[in-house]
Amino acid sequence: MKSNLIVGAGLSGAVLASLIADKLNEEVLVIDRKEHIAGNIYDYKDKETNITIHKYGPHIFHTNNKKVWDYLSKYTKWNFFFLKPNVIIEGNCVTLPFNLTTLYEVFSNKMASDLEEKLISTYGYGAKVPILKLRENPELEFIAQYIYENVFKNYTSKQWGLEPDKIDPSVTARVPIYISFDNRYFQDKYQGIPLFGYTKMVENILKHKNIKVKLNTDFKEITQKFDRVIYCGAIDEYFDYKFGQLPYRSLNFDIQTINQEYYQKTVVVNYPNNYDFTRICEHKYFLNEKSSKTVISVEYPQSFELGKNERYYPIANDENLALYKKYKDESQKIDGLYFLGRLGDYKYYNMDLAVERVFEFFDKELK
Amino acid sequence: MKSNLIVGAGLSGAVLASLIADKLNEEVLVIDRKEHIAGNIYDYKDKETNITIHKYGPHIFHTNNKKVWDYLSKYTKWNFFFLKPNVIIEGNCVTLPFNLTTLYEVFSNKMASDLEEKLISTYGYGAKVPILKLRENPELEFIAQYIYENVFKNYTSKQWGLEPDKIDPSVTARVPIYISFDNRYFQDKYQGIPLFGYTKMVENILKHKNIKVKLNTDFKEITQKFDRVIYCGAIDEYFDYKFGQLPYRSLNFDIQTINQEYYQKTVVVNYPNNYDFTRICEHKYFLNEKSSKTVISVEYPQSFELGKNERYYPIANDENLALYKKYKDESQKIDGLYFLGRLGDYKYYNMDLAVERVFEFFDKELK
Repeated sequence: MKSNLIVGAGLSGAVLASLIADKLNEEVLVIDRKEHIAGNIYDYKDKETNITIHKYGPHIFHTNNKKVWDYLSKYTKWNFFFLKPNVIIEGNCVTLPFNLTTLYEVFSNKMASDLEEKLISTYGYGAKVPILKLRENPELEFIAQYIYENVFKNYTSKQWGLEPDKIDPSVTARVPIYISFDNRYFQDKYQGIPLFGYTKMVENILKHKNIKVKLNTDFKEITQKFDRVIYCGAIDEYFDYKFGQLPYRSLNFDIQTINQEYYQKTVVVNYPNNYDFTRICEHKYFLNEKSSKTVISVEYPQSFELGKNERYYPIANDENLALYKKYKDESQKIDGLYFLGRLGDYKYYNMDLAVERVFEFFDKELK
Repeated sequence: MKSNLIVGAGLSGAVLASLIADKLNEEVLVIDRKEHIAGNIYDYKDKETNITIHKYGPHIFHTNNKKVWDYLSKYTKWNFFFLKPNVIIEGNCVTLPFNLTTLYEVFSNKMASDLEEKLISTYGYGAKVPILKLRENPELEFIAQYIYENVFKNYTSKQWGLEPDKIDPSVTARVPIYISFDNRYFQDKYQGIPLFGYTKMVENILKHKNIKVKLNTDFKEITQKFDRVIYCGAIDEYFDYKFGQLPYRSLNFDIQTINQEYYQKTVVVNYPNNYDFTRICEHKYFLNEKSSKTVISVEYPQSFELGKNERYYPIANDENLALYKKYKDESQKIDGLYFLGRLGDYKYYNMDLAVERVFEFFDKELK
């Protein structure tokens, strides 16, 4: 029986551990430096209000992949949940994604119905049209520019820490607007929040006689030898940054308890144009929890700094991907060592893609 | 180590004290004649209702200056707040600033959408157009005159104590109307109310081992000598009015507790055309405070009279500015004496400009 070490008890590490334990019937030790499992999808019950808090920002599970959905559904029941966020435009809290509903929220009926007619007659109801394309139409240039200025430009600026005039509109303006009254942020077939929280779901995934979990444990503390090491931590850290650091964007959450039943009318409200934060999340909406108080988190993007904050978003430009490739090549010289997950692959994964990636990895490398 | 006396514990005095204490590591004595700190931004909890009252009128902080926002954010958390006042026109409570939303509130759909179309096709959505300019367009002369008569003329008349026919329309009509559905009174990036009140924020600014605060203390009572005196009180008073008094407009607030949950649908409602007051402020909206009762203040403009009421608005006409200059010149003959703030500079400052002015003063004069 082979022995396996998985570094990182986040979603990728947990899913892989379960596959190895269950399908290969091998032993797995999962370690994590943090004091909790579930990585950045960790949630916990706030003591004062009993509200489930998404510590590392709002996570809404959504996928079209039935295999992924069925796999996770073995470990959790779901709160069937569609994310319908809002965005503050000109001080009004309106529908995001910007769609036909939003037109009627920010403009007069007359203006909105004129625009609606032009959009539908040009592209058809239900089309997803990049702003860049919208701009080519003189009659729709105004609305293209309006959406670009009010929804995307400043949000992108804050999110990636770039001056608004440094943003390449040909990149940002690739974002499509959805010519419909579908106010959901995602259109996937399967969407939901684990009914007892993400942490509980990951705990269930890890619950197997062949799996051992050790928290508060750094990879460097492990002296035991393993047949396989699957490292879901940062690949540059594994190699002591010998080629340099891989940059990330980070986030700071200002979590506040507020003495009123609701703070905002939906779970996530984006603030592209005001303040330095990008959005405010009100956590009780995830599981429809009741409390006379409420907990919000105000989300401030920032640079990742080693030892100061957490890695969130890999910054996937050519330079950084070239640096990642140097580490990746290095890793392939070592037998029985694999890298996986957002930090191991230096690639942002939605949760479903993280699971899908583990399935593929398992089938290709371990089965 | 130099010794500093700051006269006036309002926003300007407090910010300057913190800079001197912190960046120069010098000692500062801050005195105020009033029994409280925070000058005219002073707020307090009403005993009966527990509602936070802005004693000297509604203060909504707003700025585009990130440096000012970040500085104050060290001393307070914020209630993220957009001021969306109303105005009583023809007895209806409608959106102020007068914009496209207001058109639909005061006119029929047909009339409003005709005007909307003309305004947008002439100036473009999002334009800010002075009424004076609007008047030049024969098709828009009606709406220009309507806004001038219903929103500005009588308000200005009450505010400045002038007969309506004494108001120079070329001055008042410089006010722009905003061709948009943005119902916010301010468009600044950063807007909010200190979450625990302005007084608490100023208290935090003044909390420093090098700062001492003495209330109920007149400048004339101070016999001690200081290396620097920064006087944030009225410059004419400092010189015993030897060239004459600098005129101000004043306000009287009729503060009433009302036995119903809400009095009006927004924090500030302007009354340009009826009564002698200019506006009614309902204080519970600032911090979204809950109470079965509510507190309003009805704001009556009046002349400033020495010993009778407070100085609010400097009246910045040529004559008064010439008088101010005489005092200012006089002050520059005295070493180590500086004047600052609304009363010291005889200049109305929004709160952010007051802070900005102190930053500049500190960098230029003291650093």
